[in-house]
Amino acid sequence: MSTESDRELTLTRIIEAPPAKLFRCWTEPELLKQWFTPPPFKTIHAEVDLRPGGSSLIVMQGPDGGKIECPGIYLEVIPNEKLVFTDAYLSAWEPSAKPFMTAILTFDDLGDRTKYTARVLHWTAEDRKAHEEMGFHQGWGVATDQLAELAAKL
Amino acid sequence: MSTESDRELTLTRIIEAPPAKLFRCWTEPELLKQWFTPPPFKTIHAEVDLRPGGSSLIVMQGPDGGKIECPGIYLEVIPNEKLVFTDAYLSAWEPSAKPFMTAILTFDDLGDRTKYTARVLHWTAEDRKAHEEMGFHQGWGVATDQLAELAAKL
Repeated sequence: MSTESDRELTLTRIIEAPPAKLFRCWTEPELLKQWFTPPPFKTIHAEVDLRPGGSSLIVMQGPDGGKIECPGIYLEVIPNEKLVFTDAYLSAWEPSAKPFMTAILTFDDLGDRTKYTARVLHWTAEDRKAHEEMGFHQGWGVATDQLAELAAKL
Repeated sequence: MSTESDRELTLTRIIEAPPAKLFRCWTEPELLKQWFTPPPFKTIHAEVDLRPGGSSLIVMQGPDGGKIECPGIYLEVIPNEKLVFTDAYLSAWEPSAKPFMTAILTFDDLGDRTKYTARVLHWTAEDRKAHEEMGFHQGWGVATDQLAELAAKL
């Protein structure tokens, strides 16, 4: 039984690293670049203006050399606890070409471990379905494995 | 010559009241209800959770008694200087049925007067056009007259 609404995709994991290390991996560009993309894609550039309304820019590169720019902004930043961002704005408060998703990440402290939850909310059920068919579970799953591995080494 | 982009509607006024009074009119429900709606519409209810991510709810009533609910959230709150809100979310961070607009209000202090600017940004040129055809300039114009009149009396 799913508790997801028809506009939401969710990933939950227990990760063997404390919240502070996972938060660092999400917010320090040099760390973000190491785990964010499932191979053969790479993250070649990351900008993090970590404050509500601050811009985020991630540039990925495919195996053919093609670049994919993912601009967005942060909406809510609670260090080591919560991070919310969306692609609905390019900067504060310039609307993007297409508001597609809002991600709500929570990092629940379980001592040396973290209950990590990524809720990805879409504006339409069609966009949720498209995101799922683009390989959300596989892509975020592999990326989260890489995140857990990196955080455990910090 | 207009500096508006094809997704933006703008209203600018010099108002004979200081920024703090205009800000109060925008953020205190009992004041908001007095000026927000051009007759014969009325604003019969207003909720203001004045913080980034806080919800806003305005309920208007038409001459036939029909109610129009306008939910949204605040994105940026700088007392007496700036107020940003959008209908893209119903609460932090639940996507609305349709992200239509983001309003950026600025209150520039000119002494006893204020340069008041309302920039209304849409996600599409079609939505901007629809908003203009719904009577944006007339509606916001009359409401702003009412705002100026109320603020001058505070």
